[in-house]
Amino acid sequence: MATLQDIGVSAAINILSALAFLIAFAILRLQPVNDRVYFPKWYLKGLRASPIHSKFVNLDYRMYLRFLKWMLDALRMPEPELIEHAGLDSVVYIRIYLLGLKIFVPIAVLAFAVLVPVNWTGQWLENSHDYTFSDIDKLSISNIPSGSSRYWVHIAVAYLCTFWVYYMLYEEYKTTTTMRLEFIAASDRRPDQFTVLVRNVPPDPDESVSEHVEHFFCVNHPDHYLLHQVVYNANKLANLVDKKKSLQNWLIYYQNKYERNPSKKPTTKTGFGGLWGARVDAIDYYSKEIEKLTEKMIDDFIQEAAERERVLSDPEALLPAAFVSFKSRWGAAVCAQTQQSNNPTIWLTEWAPEPSDVYWNNLAIPYVELNIRRLLMAVALFFLIFFFMVPISIVQSVANIDGIEKVFPFLKNLVERSVLFDACSSSLVVIQDMNVMFLNGWLLLNINIFILHLLLVPYPQDVVRSFIQGYLPGIILKVFLLLIPVVIMIMSKIEGFTSFSSLERRSAAKYYLFILVNVFLGNIIAGTAFEQLHKFLHQSPTEFPKTIGVAIPMKATFFITYVMVDGWASVAAEVLRLVPFIIFHIKNTFLVKTEQDREQAMDPGFLDFPTYEPRMQLYFLLGFVYCLVAPILLPFIIVFFAFAYLVFRHQIINVYDRKYESSAAFWPDVHRRIIIGLFISQLVLLGLLSTRNVKKTTPLLIALPVLTIWFHRFCKGRFESAFTRFPLQEAMMKDTLERATDPTLNVRTYLRDAYVHPIFKGGNEYCSPPGDEEEGIPLVSTKRTSQKGSKVTSLASSEADSPRK
Amino acid sequence: MATLQDIGVSAAINILSALAFLIAFAILRLQPVNDRVYFPKWYLKGLRASPIHSKFVNLDYRMYLRFLKWMLDALRMPEPELIEHAGLDSVVYIRIYLLGLKIFVPIAVLAFAVLVPVNWTGQWLENSHDYTFSDIDKLSISNIPSGSSRYWVHIAVAYLCTFWVYYMLYEEYKTTTTMRLEFIAASDRRPDQFTVLVRNVPPDPDESVSEHVEHFFCVNHPDHYLLHQVVYNANKLANLVDKKKSLQNWLIYYQNKYERNPSKKPTTKTGFGGLWGARVDAIDYYSKEIEKLTEKMIDDFIQEAAERERVLSDPEALLPAAFVSFKSRWGAAVCAQTQQSNNPTIWLTEWAPEPSDVYWNNLAIPYVELNIRRLLMAVALFFLIFFFMVPISIVQSVANIDGIEKVFPFLKNLVERSVLFDACSSSLVVIQDMNVMFLNGWLLLNINIFILHLLLVPYPQDVVRSFIQGYLPGIILKVFLLLIPVVIMIMSKIEGFTSFSSLERRSAAKYYLFILVNVFLGNIIAGTAFEQLHKFLHQSPTEFPKTIGVAIPMKATFFITYVMVDGWASVAAEVLRLVPFIIFHIKNTFLVKTEQDREQAMDPGFLDFPTYEPRMQLYFLLGFVYCLVAPILLPFIIVFFAFAYLVFRHQIINVYDRKYESSAAFWPDVHRRIIIGLFISQLVLLGLLSTRNVKKTTPLLIALPVLTIWFHRFCKGRFESAFTRFPLQEAMMKDTLERATDPTLNVRTYLRDAYVHPIFKGGNEYCSPPGDEEEGIPLVSTKRTSQKGSKVTSLASSEADSPRK
Repeated sequence: MATLQDIGVSAAINILSALAFLIAFAILRLQPVNDRVYFPKWYLKGLRASPIHSKFVNLDYRMYLRFLKWMLDALRMPEPELIEHAGLDSVVYIRIYLLGLKIFVPIAVLAFAVLVPVNWTGQWLENSHDYTFSDIDKLSISNIPSGSSRYWVHIAVAYLCTFWVYYMLYEEYKTTTTMRLEFIAASDRRPDQFTVLVRNVPPDPDESVSEHVEHFFCVNHPDHYLLHQVVYNANKLANLVDKKKSLQNWLIYYQNKYERNPSKKPTTKTGFGGLWGARVDAIDYYSKEIEKLTEKMIDDFIQEAAERERVLSDPEALLPAAFVSFKSRWGAAVCAQTQQSNNPTIWLTEWAPEPSDVYWNNLAIPYVELNIRRLLMAVALFFLIFFFMVPISIVQSVANIDGIEKVFPFLKNLVERSVLFDACSSSLVVIQDMNVMFLNGWLLLNINIFILHLLLVPYPQDVVRSFIQGYLPGIILKVFLLLIPVVIMIMSKIEGFTSFSSLERRSAAKYYLFILVNVFLGNIIAGTAFEQLHKFLHQSPTEFPKTIGVAIPMKATFFITYVMVDGWASVAAEVLRLVPFIIFHIKNTFLVKTEQDREQAMDPGFLDFPTYEPRMQLYFLLGFVYCLVAPILLPFIIVFFAFAYLVFRHQIINVYDRKYESSAAFWPDVHRRIIIGLFISQLVLLGLLSTRNVKKTTPLLIALPVLTIWFHRFCKGRFESAFTRFPLQEAMMKDTLERATDPTLNVRTYLRDAYVHPIFKGGNEYCSPPGDEEEGIPLVSTKRTSQKGSKVTSLASSEADSPRK
Repeated sequence: MATLQDIGVSAAINILSALAFLIAFAILRLQPVNDRVYFPKWYLKGLRASPIHSKFVNLDYRMYLRFLKWMLDALRMPEPELIEHAGLDSVVYIRIYLLGLKIFVPIAVLAFAVLVPVNWTGQWLENSHDYTFSDIDKLSISNIPSGSSRYWVHIAVAYLCTFWVYYMLYEEYKTTTTMRLEFIAASDRRPDQFTVLVRNVPPDPDESVSEHVEHFFCVNHPDHYLLHQVVYNANKLANLVDKKKSLQNWLIYYQNKYERNPSKKPTTKTGFGGLWGARVDAIDYYSKEIEKLTEKMIDDFIQEAAERERVLSDPEALLPAAFVSFKSRWGAAVCAQTQQSNNPTIWLTEWAPEPSDVYWNNLAIPYVELNIRRLLMAVALFFLIFFFMVPISIVQSVANIDGIEKVFPFLKNLVERSVLFDACSSSLVVIQDMNVMFLNGWLLLNINIFILHLLLVPYPQDVVRSFIQGYLPGIILKVFLLLIPVVIMIMSKIEGFTSFSSLERRSAAKYYLFILVNVFLGNIIAGTAFEQLHKFLHQSPTEFPKTIGVAIPMKATFFITYVMVDGWASVAAEVLRLVPFIIFHIKNTFLVKTEQDREQAMDPGFLDFPTYEPRMQLYFLLGFVYCLVAPILLPFIIVFFAFAYLVFRHQIINVYDRKYESSAAFWPDVHRRIIIGLFISQLVLLGLLSTRNVKKTTPLLIALPVLTIWFHRFCKGRFESAFTRFPLQEAMMKDTLERATDPTLNVRTYLRDAYVHPIFKGGNEYCSPPGDEEEGIPLVSTKRTSQKGSKVTSLASSEADSPRK
């Protein structure tokens, strides 16, 4: 096992590289040219139109002196203002990091004050000469002899910690619930407050979907029903619009290139992506290309208009789903929470998501199909988690012909040099060994190692060879790992959830399972997830926690490195925004002509909840598991939480855009996953102590997971419905208030176009073909589309209005 | 293992004794004196006032000739009429037996047509000389050699059976749902359709509970709220009333005795139950006793009146719960299904149970206390199930000083005699061995054995000795087993459910777990439940199904005996109604003076759902498990289902009273438990085949439980909400219909007194003290109580009316 010195060196390297990233960030962010990379939110909000300093490079040295000032800035904004600025989702998200601090700082203090002395003086390792051990092991529970009464101290601390976690979780759930309710209460009038999504409208031989919906709700909610909007099957249309957008981008690119170099004759190939095909190198080619494209666009435009016409007039394009709006929030709350029909698989009502949150493709999946999809996806998830390594191993064995065994001599070569190399190589071993590593940390680490490698290896050809041999398998693993969140999101979409927010919540749940099995268990029990599964099935239920419990103390150093490499580094990389930085500058160079183009080239990004949150949960789990076993891990986790809190607070203030606002609907999931972490840690402790010959403690230890399950149920009953239902009292209060403050409000007008498919709404935006036709067609087309647009809305509303008295 | 001959003999004995019971029943039921024992329902319904034949003993020989005619009678009543007559709960309950037939008859046909020939010709047991085997084993899967391709036949049959079960369960769920909805739709106006039970009304410093409820619902359901009834803490009052009722019974008993034997001086003792204390033997004692009692009753009456006064006027006696009634079913449906307040632990609304279904004691348990109670009861249930044998063993070891080992020589003594004895003794071993046996079957069996014993053992003192030694441990076990449903019901009451129907459903769930562990697992894996738990924890998850799978074929004969002894016999005993028979005749002799008294002495009993249903589930489980392993068990189970269907159909027509009507709300539980049985059988099959060296079949076998879980979720989503929610469409339909057919209906008057505590309602019934005071006080008291009674109702309604416009 590694010594304290090893860890110190490793920490120093990681801290230095994180610091390097931070300095790079501090410098880059002050350059006006990067203003749109690092402060896009202010542009989006319309608070900033151009960089504050107009020069290309900022030369004001005073600003460089205070290069960590952004951290203070990030902390300065008070929470209510932050909610106003960034939305409740983001604020509650960063509060998870804060919760990590609140939980682990007191636990760390307790552990260092009580457990570390108890462990240190255990003297088991010194007395037994069978083991090699380091100072770190002396701090851990491994130093307590089997059957010692010192374990009672650990159990007492376990109880204290557990109750502290319960208390913090309870308080946090309460606070979040209050924040959510206040946010909802304080929020302005929004269409989703009045609207219910109705799915699985049963077919009726005599009536269209629209009529059927109308009649049903007129009968069953006579005093509250207002209007409804049917859902059109606009998938084909959406594809056409996407295609047109892509063509437009290419057109602009060619035009720019052509304008900048009218004399030079750049070469290109006619094949896919300009990569192969016949080589043509004339300006004519571009002109023709542009002409062709423009012609194509006009064709497409006509095609699209025809398609749009068809969709709106064709009753077959109507999906058996509708957005039904009510006269009051009370009416909507009632309809969303009750069952409408005898058959609970038809007339399904639920709160309408925000218009921007609707995932339109999934609105019309029949009940049986939905169930089969979920079954298939559950099976697929199982295979994804447990057989994830199979395709990777195949690709790796094909890609690396020399075989992985040659990697190890290369490492040995490194090891001989110095302490620095020692640390590097151990990090490299971590990479190879770790099964799952995440891009940012991995990038950072590889850059480090590569630079050190270049500096210290005398023969450059060695570098290349060893790079290929040493890094290729890692890169292949990385590519697969990067695909995981994407694959998981696709799976969630297949499962048929109807809003982006629920899709992201489901994806996060899946990804958490993946990380739990492949990172946590995968690193504790060596071998692939499938091997673990095999082991798990062929060991007794008490044996499995034992296996983990015994392995846990030995893996402390590994996880310390992991926290630094994955946790710290990925946060540092997050703030640097390397990928958006590069992409923005590429776009800025090749595509941007006007200020509006620059606006579009800007990519603020979103808070990637389904990827970040499960990763963060791993740190909670590690904290819970190691707080009793090897408290030395805790400071590293605390640093992670503090650093991440700072960075993400900065990011949500200055960078990220809001995709949707779910009012912290994800909190029950977050809470549950933290509870799962706690539960696992308690099982592990039970397993560990059952190997230490202290049988008397078992009943006390069994009580802990039972209590945890109970606590979970208690909190669920106490708070969860605030996240899934909308209390009538609230609804009534808001209705009454609104009636008093705005008696002339016409809800019908307000809601009429709220839930029209974005394709029909955004008609004007995409329909004017650029280039030569700027004078003629655009006018007509705009006219036509706006006619279409209004036709859509008038159609939707007339359908809702006409048969009503 | 037992041979076919053994089982034949055992079956013959059991069939004969069941037949004896049936003949006894056939004779007894025709005696006019027993009419109130065997046909109480007709009296309750007012369709019969006195026995058809007025003679004491029925001598019409023609009726005896058709002694099995009741079976045909029981089948004759068509289902709609039966629902009308006995309620939906009872009808759906007997349909579970019918479902058993529908599931297992085709499976048995398939198994005997396919599996039995395949097993019979497997020739494994004949070729291997290591095992002793019988013909029964040759019919079972044990006869197939390891690794044989014949197992594919079993897997194919498993799939066929599984899909058949799915189909039948799905159809049955659908039918039950339809029946429930039709029943609810067809049912008359009932107060619970308009009423919602509101619990956890938060305390308010300025308002009483009643005002608070009123204001809250006036504000939040302004168009629908009608009135409410608060719940009084009448527990003390209820105790007083109970005490008085018991005193009255004793009084009548003494009066009767005194009147019948005015000359004779019977002796009694003054102590508890007349069992000890000073012996007094004079008529004076009774007179004094009566006087004392009467005085006491008057005192009590005054005390009760005072208590009643106090309860109604004391605001502290108001519980934070209320029954809130709405103007329409729609309003009630909305309120019951929605969340009222931000805080989901206050203002909890749910459908009000029927007035007769309300369990008044549990209406006011705060949220935290409720959670703690459930936690404690979950832990208690765990200990009840797994440590159930501990107190029994202690009592047994104390009660049987000679030690259980002496039982076995006695058995050996029996074994030597004849084949009959052989069968008897094997039955006795079953009893001792079985861990859990149920009273009726046990009674029957013991009577058999005892009679045989008397006939065949030469020395009577042997009989007594061996009876004590052989039966005492069994009796002790029996007493504990009889207490189990009672204990479980008390546990459910502590858990805080608010209606008898939910209490019974919860008790059934607990009892099912108990039977599953202690009867099913307990008999397959020898040893106490705790030992099984230990084994389970220390075996791998794949090992446990293997252990069971291997043991299953060996236990076939045991379970065949079990089905006959427990299943057939208990059903036969059910129809004979031995205990109510005895009790009725005792009461009839000692307590009955008037026809009204006789009415009260009649005990129709109820369908004991929480005891019968879990036991029946065991037969489903056995059927699923053995249909592939040893199909020989199936005919016995089919006979059980058919016989039970007949008997219970007869009982619900002629005997049982309805305690409440939950409209088959228990069906989702029944369905789930059948699914659990299927799931267990699939795991067992997986375990069994994994020991038979046919690895290729594993994926096919794993797919089965996954499919079963999916099927459960599918059905749950498809049907369950029909049992927990009330669709608005239905409510609206009934409201509209009622408004059309009965426009003058005053719902307020109809609902005013619906949910008054039965103590306040039944005031007159218990308040007139009998005896000497018949002229004076009763009038006053009746007046006083009726005043009180009307005061209660006027109070309740005035509280509801006064602040309304």
